[in-house]
This record gives sequence, structure tokens and C-alpha cells, in this order.
Amino acid sequence: MQTISENRCFGGVQGVYSHASEACGCDMTFGLFLPDAAQMGAVPVLWYLSGLTCTHENAMVKAGAQAWAAEEGIALVFPDTSPRGDEIANDDAYDLGQGAGFYVNATQAPWAPHFRMWDYVAEELPALIGKNFAVDMERQAITGHSMGGHGALTLAMGLPGRFRSVSAFSPITHPSASDWGRKQLTAYLGDDEAKWAPHDATLQMQAVGFDGPVLIDQGCDDQFLDLLKPEALSAAMAARRQDGTFRMQKGYDHSYFFVSTFMEDHVTFHANALYAD
Amino acid sequence: MQTISENRCFGGVQGVYSHASEACGCDMTFGLFLPDAAQMGAVPVLWYLSGLTCTHENAMVKAGAQAWAAEEGIALVFPDTSPRGDEIANDDAYDLGQGAGFYVNATQAPWAPHFRMWDYVAEELPALIGKNFAVDMERQAITGHSMGGHGALTLAMGLPGRFRSVSAFSPITHPSASDWGRKQLTAYLGDDEAKWAPHDATLQMQAVGFDGPVLIDQGCDDQFLDLLKPEALSAAMAARRQDGTFRMQKGYDHSYFFVSTFMEDHVTFHANALYAD
Repeated sequence: MQTISENRCFGGVQGVYSHASEACGCDMTFGLFLPDAAQMGAVPVLWYLSGLTCTHENAMVKAGAQAWAAEEGIALVFPDTSPRGDEIANDDAYDLGQGAGFYVNATQAPWAPHFRMWDYVAEELPALIGKNFAVDMERQAITGHSMGGHGALTLAMGLPGRFRSVSAFSPITHPSASDWGRKQLTAYLGDDEAKWAPHDATLQMQAVGFDGPVLIDQGCDDQFLDLLKPEALSAAMAARRQDGTFRMQKGYDHSYFFVSTFMEDHVTFHANALYAD
Repeated sequence: MQTISENRCFGGVQGVYSHASEACGCDMTFGLFLPDAAQMGAVPVLWYLSGLTCTHENAMVKAGAQAWAAEEGIALVFPDTSPRGDEIANDDAYDLGQGAGFYVNATQAPWAPHFRMWDYVAEELPALIGKNFAVDMERQAITGHSMGGHGALTLAMGLPGRFRSVSAFSPITHPSASDWGRKQLTAYLGDDEAKWAPHDATLQMQAVGFDGPVLIDQGCDDQFLDLLKPEALSAAMAARRQDGTFRMQKGYDHSYFFVSTFMEDHVTFHANALYAD
């Protein structure tokens, strides 16, 4: 593991690190915020998964999460959204290939060799972080934005017992019924839609739900509402009687101005779950 | 004036606007955050001047100021740092020309026709904003980072009565004695160093000071300490018995991770001055 940068931030350290990833078969970069509390012992950790076109950096510099994580004594992890490199498959579209991993393990050419973001975020990166930093991997929570909200929800429901709480900002809720989903799931996983189900938050909510609290924020003026389909997930949550809150936020759009506005609520929400014994 | 974008943010609106600038002889772009409180009447305004290489956008997305400005009911203005355009003089160096206006009115070729950032920030932009938005130009304060901290301090001392309070993050404090200054002041203002004095915060602090409170934050691990010269301004503030606080912050560097960490303190500091009867 190599240190790219470390900046003091809200009394803690905002680091950026790279490492040779076995899951993705390339070097991967991630951001990690460690609050000052980590000097005294292992702290709980909140994962933040980013959206289409993002790297590890976007949320790290724009979401304003460190202020609240420092206050609550929680570490933040900002993974990248896909493998990257000249030798790695890509597509001209912004929503397929590099920057658009969709948090799945691809089984189809040309993506299968490197696009294994599920394994990367679910297995390899937690192991690396647990080994190298003062974080308590028994206390994890997860959130994300847009494609990252999709990732947070599907990982949380697909790994029962792993995360104590899950939240999302404007998540892609129902990719098997959306143009943000059908193209990518076909490309990465093939035509058999049965294989898509673990990667569709609405279908997972219908099938299994989440054993813990859920918080969703969605802007009413989001320019991508037709692709995100908040009605699908909110209906599934209500139908399942899922412990959770689904907030439609008047006037807000899809930007980081929206994410940063409600970040305090999300970090506080996760802190409540992470510190409940 | 044209609206480039408006995003809801912390209950208010983060706008980006462009206009034909008479001072700079080109189109200029600025960011303006209006808190929800502006719906009820004119709100006080805090100017944020940015550093080398920045546009109006950097602080707007990375400094986290809107959270605190919304809470205090204060508008934020984020001007650009220079005139811009293919037809406008520039230099290959990152610290001269476009992105490096230094908040002066250039008198020397090739800069004089467009590089009039003092007039732009001191006169033209306040008039435009006062006319078009619900801001109270009787209650203004100013801050900035690095080159923008230099601008904030020199404008505050050069325009007595204009600003109720001034603060800065890692300001260039003494440009006539620094490589961040001598080159640029020579290029923009010529060889006569007497003409530089109004644009040197340390010299202005020695000569006139500021009629109000001053707050300076400077990271102890700033990679540019030799260029910023905090000792010059802190000595001048103490020698003048200037009402003010100069904080050296252990472990912090020159980045926006530093700026965002102390932004709450700065906005609160200005709010206290702006809301004092």
C-alpha cells in the first residue's frame, strides 16, 4: 500500500492510498478519513460509494462528511467506482466501463477480467483497511450517492450482518427497470435477468430487506428522477414494513450541493446505529 | 447578467452567474450563495476571495461554507480570480496572468487593459450584486485563502468603512518581500515599489490597520510558509495593537481540507460582526 497524500482535516487525517488490487487486477486508489478519535483506539467505519464518473476524490472534497465524522469519531472510506487504466476495458459512454463499475462482479467479455467491484468493496478493501488502520470492522455502516446509493443498498442487503445501517442519496433504486441499469447489467452480467436480482435494490428489498435502519434522501427536482425511480424503492420499503425513512426533499437536485446539505443527518443516523451496543 | 446554474443547498440557493464586466473588459463568472433567510429580506454578505489557479468554483464546492452561512443567514460571494479568455493576456506560469490577478488594477503592458481585479471586486461586482439580489450592502465582511487572503486583507484595509470584519486562511501576507508577490507586483504595477504598498497586507497593517476585528488561520505544516510569511503579518498586528487573532494551527497544510476545517469559526466570527447592531 502506498500513501498518495495525507492532509490534516477536522482534527483527523484525510488520506489517499493506492494498492495493487487482486480483485480488480490493477492498482486501485481510495480515500480514508481517520478522525482524531482513532489515536485512542479502533473507530467505527462508514463507507461512502460514489456515483457515475466519480473517482475516490469527488465525495472526499465535496460532500463535507469529514466535519460530522470527526464529531462522531467515525472513519470514512471513499473507494473508486471501477478499475482504471489504459490496458483495461472501457466504453465511450460515461455510464459504462471505467467510472461506472456498478458494484458488480462482471462475468461477460470484455469486462470480466477487471470489473469485480463487488468483491473489491465487499472483501478486498475491508481486509486491507482492517489490517492497516485503526478501524473496528465489527462496526460498519454504508452510504452512497446515485450509482453509489445502488451499491450501498445492494451490498447492505446482500451481506446480511455486515452493516449496522444503510443510507443513500438519490440512489438508482431499480436498475433492472431503468436505462441506468439494463444496459450495464446486460454488459457486465449477461442477458439472464435472474442474475441481476442481487444488484437491484428494489428487488432485494422485496425479497429480503435489511436487518437494521434505512435512510433515503431524494431531491424532488432531481434531473434524473425517471432513471432513479424512487417510487419503486419507497413502495418496496413500505410493503416490507422495513425499518426506514424515505425523504423526498423539495427543491433539491442530483448534485453534491444536495448531498452536502443532508450529510450531517446521514452521519448522525449511522452514528446512532454504530454506537448502539 | 446570465444565470449559469442554481442549485438548492442548505435550504438556500447556490447560484452561478456571468456578466459582461466593464472593469475587466470580458465576461466574468461568480458564485453567490443566498440563504433561505434572503426570502424574508436583505441579508448580510461575506466575500470569499480565492487563491492562485482558482476560479469562482473551488471554494464554492470545497470550502463547506454554505452550511454555516445558511445557519447564520449570510450570503456568500465567490468571485473569479482574474479576467479570462483567449483574447486576454496570459503567462505560462501558474502564478501570473489568468487565475492570478492578485486583486490589483494593472498599469503595465500587457496586463493593464483587463487585469483590474481591485475595481472589479471593490466596485463593479458589489454594485451588480446589490442591484440584483436580496443582500444588504451596509453589512459586508470579507475573507479569502492564500492569494485571496492577501486580497481580503488589502481590500479591507484599503476601503475603510466598507467591511465590518476581515479574516483569512493562510494569506500571502507580505508580497513585496516574497516570490509570491515581487514578480506579480512588478509585472502588474511596475518597478516603483511605492505603488505596491497598498497591496501588501503587512505594510498596510503597519500603516493604517483595520477598524474592526481580524481573524487569521495559518497551518503550521503549510508547504508554502516561506512564501506566505505569517510572521510578518502577526508581528505587524501585534505591533499595531490591532483587534485580532492570529492562529497557527498545528499539523494543517495549505489545502481546502484546512480551509473547510476552520470555516465554521470564520463564518461565526463574521456573523458576530455583521449582526452587531
